[in-house]
Amino acid sequence: MNKAFPNECLPNCMRVPKACYPVPLMPDFSIAVDLGGTNLRIAAVSADGRILEKIALSTKIGSGPSEVVDAMCDAILRLSHQYGSSGALIGAGIGIPGIIDLEAGVVRRSANLPEWAEYPVRSEIEKRLGTRIFLENDAKVHALGEQWMGAGHGVSNMAMITLGTGIGGAIVFDGKIFHGLNGMAGEFGHVTIEPEGVPCGCGNRGCAERYASATALVRIAREAIAAGKAPGLAKAANSKTELSAKLIYEFAMQGDDAARCIFRHFGRALGIMLADIINVLNLEMYVIGGGVASAWDAFAPSMFQEVRERSTIYAATAPPNELQEGGTRQPKRGETVITRAVLGSDAGLYGAAKLAMG
Amino acid sequence: MNKAFPNECLPNCMRVPKACYPVPLMPDFSIAVDLGGTNLRIAAVSADGRILEKIALSTKIGSGPSEVVDAMCDAILRLSHQYGSSGALIGAGIGIPGIIDLEAGVVRRSANLPEWAEYPVRSEIEKRLGTRIFLENDAKVHALGEQWMGAGHGVSNMAMITLGTGIGGAIVFDGKIFHGLNGMAGEFGHVTIEPEGVPCGCGNRGCAERYASATALVRIAREAIAAGKAPGLAKAANSKTELSAKLIYEFAMQGDDAARCIFRHFGRALGIMLADIINVLNLEMYVIGGGVASAWDAFAPSMFQEVRERSTIYAATAPPNELQEGGTRQPKRGETVITRAVLGSDAGLYGAAKLAMG
Repeated sequence: MNKAFPNECLPNCMRVPKACYPVPLMPDFSIAVDLGGTNLRIAAVSADGRILEKIALSTKIGSGPSEVVDAMCDAILRLSHQYGSSGALIGAGIGIPGIIDLEAGVVRRSANLPEWAEYPVRSEIEKRLGTRIFLENDAKVHALGEQWMGAGHGVSNMAMITLGTGIGGAIVFDGKIFHGLNGMAGEFGHVTIEPEGVPCGCGNRGCAERYASATALVRIAREAIAAGKAPGLAKAANSKTELSAKLIYEFAMQGDDAARCIFRHFGRALGIMLADIINVLNLEMYVIGGGVASAWDAFAPSMFQEVRERSTIYAATAPPNELQEGGTRQPKRGETVITRAVLGSDAGLYGAAKLAMG
Repeated sequence: MNKAFPNECLPNCMRVPKACYPVPLMPDFSIAVDLGGTNLRIAAVSADGRILEKIALSTKIGSGPSEVVDAMCDAILRLSHQYGSSGALIGAGIGIPGIIDLEAGVVRRSANLPEWAEYPVRSEIEKRLGTRIFLENDAKVHALGEQWMGAGHGVSNMAMITLGTGIGGAIVFDGKIFHGLNGMAGEFGHVTIEPEGVPCGCGNRGCAERYASATALVRIAREAIAAGKAPGLAKAANSKTELSAKLIYEFAMQGDDAARCIFRHFGRALGIMLADIINVLNLEMYVIGGGVASAWDAFAPSMFQEVRERSTIYAATAPPNELQEGGTRQPKRGETVITRAVLGSDAGLYGAAKLAMG
């Protein structure tokens, strides 16, 4: 085709059919929303798993749910119009922290969004958009995202463990979130690690998340400092630096004995929990994500050692070189793989998009 | 119809069509085999869940697998011919103790049938019968039986915990056994109860089955006797009576403090394990079977108390009167029910029959 002349100026015999124009192919897409206590992120995600565009807003938590939903719906509509001119909108999925009543479409309880309790979030959004949307708990959406386009790509059955303030969990069977009877399947953080251990907010004692979360790291470090067993951390905590999981990790990486010991205990607790989950579920893959997963090299050796000792299933089916790898890997046939999440916070967007694709 | 005259003697206009004859309706059926280390039981089970006929043999373990398979196949053929004349044979299912390679149809390891290790049991049976058969681990077959015609009748998703020498386990999803990656899903007995507890044959320490099985009861009773804390049991054990789970139960029922205390600890361990399983799976029903389940009234109170304390899911969804009931119950919508198995050893026959029905 002669590029100097528009198609219309050419004689009929030389005209290129419209379908052959080199316009970018616009794919079918979903709208994904990741609603957090701080950030509100909306994206258009293609059916083949590409984030076409992301909009990052802050969650104006003080203004109440209605204003947040307004801002969310504006962004959804903007992306729908932009990508809907050539590709078809498959649907919209939304990940929300807390306990979601999926049937009613209502947030029952949310530590990060306290004002959203009993808010009929699904109907409020559907009213504004005039279309059906899909809700889900954010930890479960993350798992679906990792299964679809992340560490679990190509793996049908996996569990995800999210290490943050607490421990989040989710199970994916045949590429779908497994909810259990009340949407509470995958409460890994409340598996008992020490039957007479530290009390937990859930009413139990010795829950895994009391020993293997960011909160747990800080608590254990404080106890070590109080007992005079962590002089390096004590000095740092006396200065203006806040005692955080990140600081303890940095100390561990610098070779501080107390910090290294704290992470060994963290890994041990995580290992006991993982062995229990493996003994119950016998899945192909266990993906560990969340902020604290970035301290992988500090806790992974003791975690792997503990899982091997406590789960014959794992010991019999683990890949041989697990300890060395800090990245991700795909299981070979019959193998059980424990690996890191790869998508970071985008997992929530991929998962929410996949939710709408079914 | 005139009963004095056979149909053939009546004029055509008075003859009754053959389909109306009052012959007993023979239903379609499966053949079920429950192969144990001591007993070999074979049954014809109708598609609607009735045991039509049972054959009970002893497993001649000393003669090797081949002779046992011969006897099994003779019984299968006898029942097939008997019930196959009017109903259609759907298939044959066989429950076998131990680790079964379902793909290869081979027993990999069996504590109760040590000589069967690596024996190609499926092909040997199929060769003799000339038809396809279905193999499964016996604990999983029991669970399927209870789900089909027992405590879990009408419940799609349940787990079964079998309390015997050890703890067996199985998960049923949507009315089918959930195998997991290597057929090892449901290894509840090796969930860690005490992280630095009693060593287990599996390599772990503090496994549930070290605290909540018949073997565990006897071990704990022996320790109590040695420590001078169980005078009643000590006296009984000094006589010719063997120290058994049954004896300890009888003592507990007679009000013996030490025996009651042993069962409280048993219930506590079982409760920790159950809470872990509930927190991971969030199913509708957990069925407890096996020989030791008959000591229900001795361990159930401490078991229920422990599960309530350690699983918020259970505490929020348990039926109000769990402690009183020693029988079985069906869950109401949204309820989590822990109940007793009802089929006893017939669960293995129902389950094996269902296996063949798909």
